[in-house]
Amino acid sequence: MSARSGNRPAALRSPAQIPLRPRAVDASAGTRTGRIPLAEPTPFTPGGFASKAFVGEVVPFRVTAFREGHDRIGAHLRLTAPDGAETLHRLTPLEDGTDRWQTEVALDLQGIWRYRFEGFGDDFATWAYAASVKIVAGVDVEVMSALGEELFRRAARDKNRPGAERKRLASIAETLSKTDSAVALAVATDADVAAVFAARPLFSLSAATPEQTILVERTMAAVGAWYEFFPRSEGAKRKKDGTLKSGTFRSAAKRLPGVAEMGFDVLYLPPIHPIGRTHRKGPNNSLVAGPSDPGSPWAIGAAEGGHDAVHPDLGTLADLRFFVREAHKVGLEVALDLALQASPDHPWVTTHPEWFTTLPDGTIAYAENPPKKYQDIYPLNFDDDPEGLRDEVLRIVKHWISQGVKIFRVDNPHTKPLWFWEWLIARVSAIDPDIVFLAEAFTRPAPVRALAAAGFQQSYTYFTWRNTKSELEEFLTGLATETADYLRPNLFVNTPDILTEYLQFGGRAAYRIRAAIAATAAPTYGVYAGYELYENVARPGAEENIDNEKYEYKFRDFAAAEAAGDSLAPYLRKLNAIRRAHPALRQLRNLAVHWSDDDAILVYSKHLEAAFTDDGHSDTIIVVANVDPHSVRETTVHLDTRAGVLNPVRYMRLKTSSPAPCGPGPITTLCASTRSPNRCTS
Amino acid sequence: MSARSGNRPAALRSPAQIPLRPRAVDASAGTRTGRIPLAEPTPFTPGGFASKAFVGEVVPFRVTAFREGHDRIGAHLRLTAPDGAETLHRLTPLEDGTDRWQTEVALDLQGIWRYRFEGFGDDFATWAYAASVKIVAGVDVEVMSALGEELFRRAARDKNRPGAERKRLASIAETLSKTDSAVALAVATDADVAAVFAARPLFSLSAATPEQTILVERTMAAVGAWYEFFPRSEGAKRKKDGTLKSGTFRSAAKRLPGVAEMGFDVLYLPPIHPIGRTHRKGPNNSLVAGPSDPGSPWAIGAAEGGHDAVHPDLGTLADLRFFVREAHKVGLEVALDLALQASPDHPWVTTHPEWFTTLPDGTIAYAENPPKKYQDIYPLNFDDDPEGLRDEVLRIVKHWISQGVKIFRVDNPHTKPLWFWEWLIARVSAIDPDIVFLAEAFTRPAPVRALAAAGFQQSYTYFTWRNTKSELEEFLTGLATETADYLRPNLFVNTPDILTEYLQFGGRAAYRIRAAIAATAAPTYGVYAGYELYENVARPGAEENIDNEKYEYKFRDFAAAEAAGDSLAPYLRKLNAIRRAHPALRQLRNLAVHWSDDDAILVYSKHLEAAFTDDGHSDTIIVVANVDPHSVRETTVHLDTRAGVLNPVRYMRLKTSSPAPCGPGPITTLCASTRSPNRCTS
Repeated sequence: MSARSGNRPAALRSPAQIPLRPRAVDASAGTRTGRIPLAEPTPFTPGGFASKAFVGEVVPFRVTAFREGHDRIGAHLRLTAPDGAETLHRLTPLEDGTDRWQTEVALDLQGIWRYRFEGFGDDFATWAYAASVKIVAGVDVEVMSALGEELFRRAARDKNRPGAERKRLASIAETLSKTDSAVALAVATDADVAAVFAARPLFSLSAATPEQTILVERTMAAVGAWYEFFPRSEGAKRKKDGTLKSGTFRSAAKRLPGVAEMGFDVLYLPPIHPIGRTHRKGPNNSLVAGPSDPGSPWAIGAAEGGHDAVHPDLGTLADLRFFVREAHKVGLEVALDLALQASPDHPWVTTHPEWFTTLPDGTIAYAENPPKKYQDIYPLNFDDDPEGLRDEVLRIVKHWISQGVKIFRVDNPHTKPLWFWEWLIARVSAIDPDIVFLAEAFTRPAPVRALAAAGFQQSYTYFTWRNTKSELEEFLTGLATETADYLRPNLFVNTPDILTEYLQFGGRAAYRIRAAIAATAAPTYGVYAGYELYENVARPGAEENIDNEKYEYKFRDFAAAEAAGDSLAPYLRKLNAIRRAHPALRQLRNLAVHWSDDDAILVYSKHLEAAFTDDGHSDTIIVVANVDPHSVRETTVHLDTRAGVLNPVRYMRLKTSSPAPCGPGPITTLCASTRSPNRCTS
Repeated sequence: MSARSGNRPAALRSPAQIPLRPRAVDASAGTRTGRIPLAEPTPFTPGGFASKAFVGEVVPFRVTAFREGHDRIGAHLRLTAPDGAETLHRLTPLEDGTDRWQTEVALDLQGIWRYRFEGFGDDFATWAYAASVKIVAGVDVEVMSALGEELFRRAARDKNRPGAERKRLASIAETLSKTDSAVALAVATDADVAAVFAARPLFSLSAATPEQTILVERTMAAVGAWYEFFPRSEGAKRKKDGTLKSGTFRSAAKRLPGVAEMGFDVLYLPPIHPIGRTHRKGPNNSLVAGPSDPGSPWAIGAAEGGHDAVHPDLGTLADLRFFVREAHKVGLEVALDLALQASPDHPWVTTHPEWFTTLPDGTIAYAENPPKKYQDIYPLNFDDDPEGLRDEVLRIVKHWISQGVKIFRVDNPHTKPLWFWEWLIARVSAIDPDIVFLAEAFTRPAPVRALAAAGFQQSYTYFTWRNTKSELEEFLTGLATETADYLRPNLFVNTPDILTEYLQFGGRAAYRIRAAIAATAAPTYGVYAGYELYENVARPGAEENIDNEKYEYKFRDFAAAEAAGDSLAPYLRKLNAIRRAHPALRQLRNLAVHWSDDDAILVYSKHLEAAFTDDGHSDTIIVVANVDPHSVRETTVHLDTRAGVLNPVRYMRLKTSSPAPCGPGPITTLCASTRSPNRCTS
């Protein structure tokens, strides 16, 4: 447990309370306002839920703090790690007129951290400032020396300071007693003296915020590159007689090294359960399925079993465990789908009809968006036997955990009650805090945020529909700031349900642009198989692929495509390598948008201070992306150096096309180093 | 107590709880999330303080509410007035994708109101929507009829409904039992049936937010036109021998009818206490005062007394009471200044040296902004005897209350501890809830807001420094939205301390522009005497009047100036008359900014729905202000009709110069009626 604090020497460990000035009386006790007003502490998560972070995340802790008049204040973050270790982190004012104070801390231990802010009158700073300006002006020289003497004598009496420090402070007090203006000025402006009080301030008057909590989850909860494939397609075969043979866990396992070699961390499988036969959908979502059409994996449940069973075509539970083990061998985690709905053939339909809605005619209600109906799906009803149903879902999740699975991609969580997710995720986390739930809630902002606040470790986002520069600037900034205390985005570039017009009509450049932004703008992103083959033909009138894999097997030859130069795989490999090489890309909150003169050239950076990197060097990535997939553009980029990207230069301009013009290509410049910002790495 | 609800027929009074569906079980009880998620209720005030409103204020109550899936929800505001009367107000969705629901209620009783939001499954709306779309599509006709029959039978069993309504519902159930698609469609789309369920919804599943409070203060806490004068100047005389004679409460009382006749509501007096002689400031803030220089009223305290005494030049306590009575006779309230600081001659300096800061050399510390010192002022120290000092201030405030004063303008509250104001205002409100404190905190946003949240009824603002169109748009919108739950702005156009460059160099037009905006953009504004005489000469290098009244008597002939056409008084009179004629101007939260094509023409409206006016007609003011005082401008104004300004027209454009061009003059058009938007009233 180190809780590294950025921009500050070292955090103080378990510091003792420093006594108040003897005469001071705190009459603020009976009020809501403390003696030093402290307000709006962040991280903050709406709804009373704990804020979230991940192991290794650099978290800004901020509070509004001020006091009346001209006297100086200081503020601390008092942080208690899950192992009980307490550290004290000095805050610095943002100096932007907001009275916000901040420190950044890397939280590096999984579990619940507790924190409070403390504000105090900083007696040394008050004296040093007044003394320095007054002595220079020849005002109150004797008084300032005398006040300084009093202050240093008080500090020297402080038994919590090391003996050598106390001796030194007493000796300074002695010098100040001689009332020499040059001496007093020297003391007031001495950096070493200031450092002594920065490490152990001389308090008077103080206040603290109530204690809050922040839940630190494992890094994979927020950082990872995801790849999605349908295991039934991997190894599927069209036999000579025209019939089709499903891929299996065993055949799909052969593709795992290839996925790992592209640099992905998580392999997500659509539902692996038996698929219903009643009203099974045929190719392209047609209402009639042929005898060898496999059906949609989201129509869960058949005679062979329900949510706790494996589709016989894929193999057995033992085959799944083999698949999971093979994945682990090449460094991949397996994520399963949790889609809480049933085909009409699901065992629950007969064993637990109370988990569905029965209509007055005795039939069970289909899923619908009136007047449309989805006759291959029964939605669950959480109101007639909520305890029974929630306990069954918990049983199912525990069942898959027992097979070695720790990540669940949750289908349409916004169509189930919010309380249920809060309940389920809390129960599962108590059993194993490493379990990750990803919310696939493509719905309005309020439920998306509420699901994240209530416990989901990750969320799909509107990323696929944010394609212009201005949309992306606002969207990415929002992810890094507004919702970062509780929502971790997973920027999937495509899904079996989403093939946006941008990808349909943007050509191969569009695929590169979207992958580069997804991979660099957030610590987690995802790709659904076929993206690297530029599969960009949509079913007419739909925003999804034609001949959609949801309803049929796909036979793809990834190796042949790559050999022919028709694959994005090398580019994805490079992006994932850059992600691994640059710790700045594995942070959520460090994105800063910069300016370019062109309305299609998006510029942002991810910066990590040296205090937070393993090698002790700061890490900066500047992404300059031309989001217009149809033309080469040239512009001037203006970097805001407040974002730490180029410290010595106040404002730097760089032409993205010189000295090495990077075109044609969507990412005009992707600079991996601030030392050679013009070098194109893509 | 009526708690009128806008856009809704009538609020339900003390409605009984409507029982849930018999089978429904609420398993959400153990979670933070209710069965219907409800989030971010507003009004909301940071720091845990109660939100504020004023008698007659139309307050928007909002909550985020949603549920999973397609079923409809409803939401209520349950409001308990200070007299215990409970009303229920139906919320409507804002329909902007935010899942925010709203109702507006006019709070018309002083005291503490309690409120909570309730969300529920709206079973009738769910059925009616599904039935209407499905029956038209020929889908599920029998099922929808049967579900409808079940629903109407359930409603008919509800003992909280009037007997006639129950009979009618039972009879509708009977018709639905015949499974006629035309009948079911007619029921599902019948406006009368919908109205029955709008008034008394058919609940299933529900949730409520925790109870919150809102403090409703008297109207004057937020609505009024203020005028400030120095009583010593009103009736002051320069005698033949050149010596000066101070005005008195008796002579100043003669000016009260004139102030009242201009339409003002509050007369604010700078400090009326004895003024120190030690280091008394002379004219133009000079360090040496002549024998007849009266000194700054803010240098409080002399041999004659301190904060509880009246300056002998002004008269006696009895004279003050006379002045207050005379003010009341003409409809004016008197506001006194509460400036918690002392001259070196203040009695406290000897009786309570512990209320000041004593330096090591035995002297008392002057007020300072290092290295600058203000030797006529000792600041108070609230930390050595906080209880003693706070009790003394409470005694002083009670003393002035006993003289008939109910309004206090507090000088520099941000230089005293915040806890102290929270404590003082709570104590004083408990004694007399009509007491109003106005915070003169010209400081950073965080303390300004914190003072308001902690209890101040009103606040000075940055208005004087917001002069461009874009500045004003942002500033006025912020006042009406962001901080309106707890901060009531008082838009003083000038003060003895503030004569902005805009007024110094903008000519008479600038004075009209600023007065018109101040008087219409917020329910409270203020004018310091001399503004109507266009006193625009500043002391060189300062942002305040030359020959400042703070340090000398002013001899003004208001009547002569008006007779010569050199006075703004007629314009102020007109503005105050418009304020009184238009209830929309006496609201804080109803300001909407509109668009104009010119970068100096500011357009905003104040609109009040008919449900909230006394005469039952809606009231709308559209202000079109040219904030460039140096030129006549012509532009096209675009009104956003969502702000209620012109309901039948989706977008209306009006040229401010036709048919009646309004120039030269700063306010191109000030339209008092939407019926003749082009008519100039100034």
